[in-house]
Amino acid sequence: MSLKFEVLAKASNSSARQGKIKLSRGEFSTPTFMPVGTQATVKTLSSEDLKACGAGIILANTYHLYLRPGESLIASSGGLHEFMNWDRPILTDSGGFQVFSLTELNDITDEGVKFKSHLDGSSHFITPEKSIEIQKELGADIIMAFDECTPYPAEKNYVEKALDRTLRWAERCQQEAEDTEQNLFGIIQGGTFADLRKLSARETVKFDFPGYALGGLSVGEENELMYEMLDVTVPELPQSKPRYLMGVGTPEDLIQGVLRGIDMFDCVMPTRIARHGSIYTNKGRLTIRNASFSADFSPLDPECSCYVCRNYSRAYIRHLLKRKEILGHRLTSYHNIYFFQNLMTKIREAIARDELTYFADDFLTQYKD
Amino acid sequence: MSLKFEVLAKASNSSARQGKIKLSRGEFSTPTFMPVGTQATVKTLSSEDLKACGAGIILANTYHLYLRPGESLIASSGGLHEFMNWDRPILTDSGGFQVFSLTELNDITDEGVKFKSHLDGSSHFITPEKSIEIQKELGADIIMAFDECTPYPAEKNYVEKALDRTLRWAERCQQEAEDTEQNLFGIIQGGTFADLRKLSARETVKFDFPGYALGGLSVGEENELMYEMLDVTVPELPQSKPRYLMGVGTPEDLIQGVLRGIDMFDCVMPTRIARHGSIYTNKGRLTIRNASFSADFSPLDPECSCYVCRNYSRAYIRHLLKRKEILGHRLTSYHNIYFFQNLMTKIREAIARDELTYFADDFLTQYKD
Repeated sequence: MSLKFEVLAKASNSSARQGKIKLSRGEFSTPTFMPVGTQATVKTLSSEDLKACGAGIILANTYHLYLRPGESLIASSGGLHEFMNWDRPILTDSGGFQVFSLTELNDITDEGVKFKSHLDGSSHFITPEKSIEIQKELGADIIMAFDECTPYPAEKNYVEKALDRTLRWAERCQQEAEDTEQNLFGIIQGGTFADLRKLSARETVKFDFPGYALGGLSVGEENELMYEMLDVTVPELPQSKPRYLMGVGTPEDLIQGVLRGIDMFDCVMPTRIARHGSIYTNKGRLTIRNASFSADFSPLDPECSCYVCRNYSRAYIRHLLKRKEILGHRLTSYHNIYFFQNLMTKIREAIARDELTYFADDFLTQYKD
Repeated sequence: MSLKFEVLAKASNSSARQGKIKLSRGEFSTPTFMPVGTQATVKTLSSEDLKACGAGIILANTYHLYLRPGESLIASSGGLHEFMNWDRPILTDSGGFQVFSLTELNDITDEGVKFKSHLDGSSHFITPEKSIEIQKELGADIIMAFDECTPYPAEKNYVEKALDRTLRWAERCQQEAEDTEQNLFGIIQGGTFADLRKLSARETVKFDFPGYALGGLSVGEENELMYEMLDVTVPELPQSKPRYLMGVGTPEDLIQGVLRGIDMFDCVMPTRIARHGSIYTNKGRLTIRNASFSADFSPLDPECSCYVCRNYSRAYIRHLLKRKEILGHRLTSYHNIYFFQNLMTKIREAIARDELTYFADDFLTQYKD
């Protein structure tokens, strides 16, 4: 089934909206946060854990899965859902961001990108068509156009060229995806230049994709600059299509993004900081590995009602982390993913009650990163 | 509640028996296998996982918990059950085996053992009284006497002295444990000398402990030699008390142990080999990391009905292990613990039907380690 997006509530004093995305593998409410399963696994968590945390859709990385175990292997298993035992929607990125940020780049032309794998230095050539072919093999419900992701800072001249190329690639991606039921989202680039962001948005919208992503943000620029880019870009996008802010972000970023009209987010942060022994609470992040928690028998977050907070103490989890026990990483990862899902639930409820700005003020006053 | 042991069925052509151990925190059927939670966690698994695998009792290591996080911290959290969120019975060992095998020993006297921690080289002195004090703080349902565990091979003269000392220590442990509801098991030593094993058993039984363990086995000797030691020792033990073979073993060892009258086992093997990418099947162990499984979409063990085998493929788990993803370790550990619990269930059912020797023949014909 093609993606169906429905807006159910709109905030009266911000661009926030609450809605629902329907796909053949299920529906989920927006704004939504997608946990990241880079290697076809959201690190440390099982599918059951993710469902218990409330995840309605997850993201997997095309670049990593293309390298290992390879898209053909995943296709022969029946696709990514079957391979990783996840029956709800999946979004795959195009590999563009990883190719431009992780690899040794050899040659970028209109045809595509030559690069060396970050794993073994082997040579690869990815074109827009190739990215879509790989994503067809993986079989995600939402797939992404192959884009040239510019770093921050970058010269305007270069950003403009990358933007143009991304548009030409968008067309080729759309053609390549014509014969699939998967839903191809376009990606808006333009770096941190307001006029380029607007231009990219207007031109990308002409392709009439079922959804639009904002790429090339959260790559090192100040938060305020990212929010400005949302402010100038989102008004160029149709109300009737979901908007996805790629690779974002902190709890504060999620709230600021929703206020500016974003519907979808993804970020490795909650699982990454979990593995380093940090957890989220409504008051900010805590480094639970610290000695100050060694005899603290309260839950990770006393306000949280997740499985971990109902059953395990800070002292126990600190002990596990100090002893490098895998269960420690599981428990912090579980809590952090739950925290993000729960935050999105509270955001959706606040929009439905048209109280998002109050909620945002309350949350951001308490929360110190 | 003090331990209550009931024998429900006895094999007619072996020493096997099927029974039940009742403790205040619950009862479990014997013969039983105890997963090992060295650091107050059975590596990679949550309490829910362990229960889903059918574990009725688990083991934790006094030596490790004494060093980190320390028994006082665990006591102040409410004890080991509360600390690690496990409400079924726990057995703690005495620390003897670890002190004699893991540490740099400084001095062994009748008073106790001086040694250096394997973690940081700090000096420690453990006496029988100290071991029991620590185990009281941890609060397990079954605790073990502090013993001098001899290596293999060892001179008979030394084994005899260690046996004598273990008996003197047993008396002190019993005195120290007089004021606790915890159930103190005695430990039989004697190395691989039949006469010393018999002597140790006869003398240990005089203390009338609620259960008896066979220590100092599975420390490098041939399997057949271990089985011989069981053959000479078990007849010296009362029918009315549970018998625990410490640190054993492989599926074959479990069956051979049960045939010789053993009721309880523990071993790190199923979780340890899981982390190295190996899993158990009825036909033997498989190294799932091997390239031959890269496109094998069948379950780890096609005959197994555990959560992992119902939901994940060998190819996916191999991919996780190759990518060093924690979920890979979780899934192999879960399967292996389930395999052991399920094997014990089948053993118990076979005893109840008085068909254990047939079951053992069938299993051992198929299973190649």
